[in-house]
Amino acid sequence: MLQIIGQEKKKGNDTIVREFSLSIFFNNQELVTLACSPSNLEHLVAGFLFSEGFVKGKHDLNEIVVDYQRGVAKVTTKEGKKKGGDFSIKRLIASSGGKGISFFHPTDSHYHTTIKSQIKISTTEIFALMDEFVQRSKIFQDTGGVHSAALCDKNEILLFREDIGRHNAIDKIFGECILKNIQTDERIILTSGRVSSEILLKVSKRNIPLLVSKSAPTDMGVQLAGEFGMTLIGFARGERMNIYTHEYRVM
Amino acid sequence: MLQIIGQEKKKGNDTIVREFSLSIFFNNQELVTLACSPSNLEHLVAGFLFSEGFVKGKHDLNEIVVDYQRGVAKVTTKEGKKKGGDFSIKRLIASSGGKGISFFHPTDSHYHTTIKSQIKISTTEIFALMDEFVQRSKIFQDTGGVHSAALCDKNEILLFREDIGRHNAIDKIFGECILKNIQTDERIILTSGRVSSEILLKVSKRNIPLLVSKSAPTDMGVQLAGEFGMTLIGFARGERMNIYTHEYRVM
Repeated sequence: MLQIIGQEKKKGNDTIVREFSLSIFFNNQELVTLACSPSNLEHLVAGFLFSEGFVKGKHDLNEIVVDYQRGVAKVTTKEGKKKGGDFSIKRLIASSGGKGISFFHPTDSHYHTTIKSQIKISTTEIFALMDEFVQRSKIFQDTGGVHSAALCDKNEILLFREDIGRHNAIDKIFGECILKNIQTDERIILTSGRVSSEILLKVSKRNIPLLVSKSAPTDMGVQLAGEFGMTLIGFARGERMNIYTHEYRVM
Repeated sequence: MLQIIGQEKKKGNDTIVREFSLSIFFNNQELVTLACSPSNLEHLVAGFLFSEGFVKGKHDLNEIVVDYQRGVAKVTTKEGKKKGGDFSIKRLIASSGGKGISFFHPTDSHYHTTIKSQIKISTTEIFALMDEFVQRSKIFQDTGGVHSAALCDKNEILLFREDIGRHNAIDKIFGECILKNIQTDERIILTSGRVSSEILLKVSKRNIPLLVSKSAPTDMGVQLAGEFGMTLIGFARGERMNIYTHEYRVM
């Protein structure tokens, strides 16, 4: 790599972010190939399958075996092949990935739950959480444009994950929660990425009352947050933020 | 929307970026739904179909009719239904969109063309192009996190497009080039977004010798640029940039 600064040229040796291909086989059927960062792949797979409605929780899963060498994850469910056979596919192209797919499983009807949590949080607490979040993300954002996501309570970050995909970073968090029985109900998600309708749907399925992003929401993201009862905060940077919906949770 | 600045709260009225759903029907068969920004949709559709290998150029297309009210684009090809029936689908989850799909058409084998253009450009010319690019993107990036892409020659920006999806912004450019017979061979693409393998494949299919990004490439992006003979530049900001591959085109 050649680094140019003004008129100067020098050999550089920057870290380049890795892009990894992970093919998921669901009950021996090839389901999808994810472009992702090669960490916490078991959590990514569990989170993805939950987000897309293939599994409803840990109880549905039999085994997830990830082969990091070959880039393959083999998933079996307790119901086995029966369940693998009946998924229908609705193709949806994701906003910031450009190319997208969405699966709607017939047994999946979590979309319209209203989030009822009465959790309250102060602006100072949100600023402090975002400050810690940005500190932890810093190296990665500077070097590789990697996205970050975190699960928090009011006082601290409980889980922090990165991925080249903003959806994946959140799926890694939720996958870990599912596999380790970590509660999400009264908790907060922080994300570096924009909040499109897909992100909103993903987070609402875990019953999260507060979603805080460093970036912008889309109008569909705001609309869905309003409908689902989620407090959506965008542009949370330094001592500033915009509260788009259900501001009663912020003191 | 409630705007928080330090301890102050005030009613805000920010512009929120629009997210639009566009369903593409290809020879009367539902192909895909894109999450996009609602501008230049005819170009987006043409560019998407080319990128994904459904059409090889303008000559394949009969008609693209976009219904902005219903969010539907109806595309017919000259070969008609015959062509619509035989596409096979390979699902691929895009890095930054999280959810992705990639179609491989049997007749599509553009991937391994080597780019032979001997175009030369100075670092000063690249800095000037990126400066204009950032100026034009500024409002949108501040308000909505929208991605930008531009087609340039050495002297100026020829086409500039935005979209909530970084893939879409580039597809809008290429779609317009295809429909209006605008040459891309000896030209340059600027993008605000990260360069993953998918972006690299998309741009290489238009035989573009120089791809300049404000953001980072992934390792797979760099590897493919090397193989395809494309000069890949990342982190082009102010008077700085990193040249990852085929630096002989930059003086």
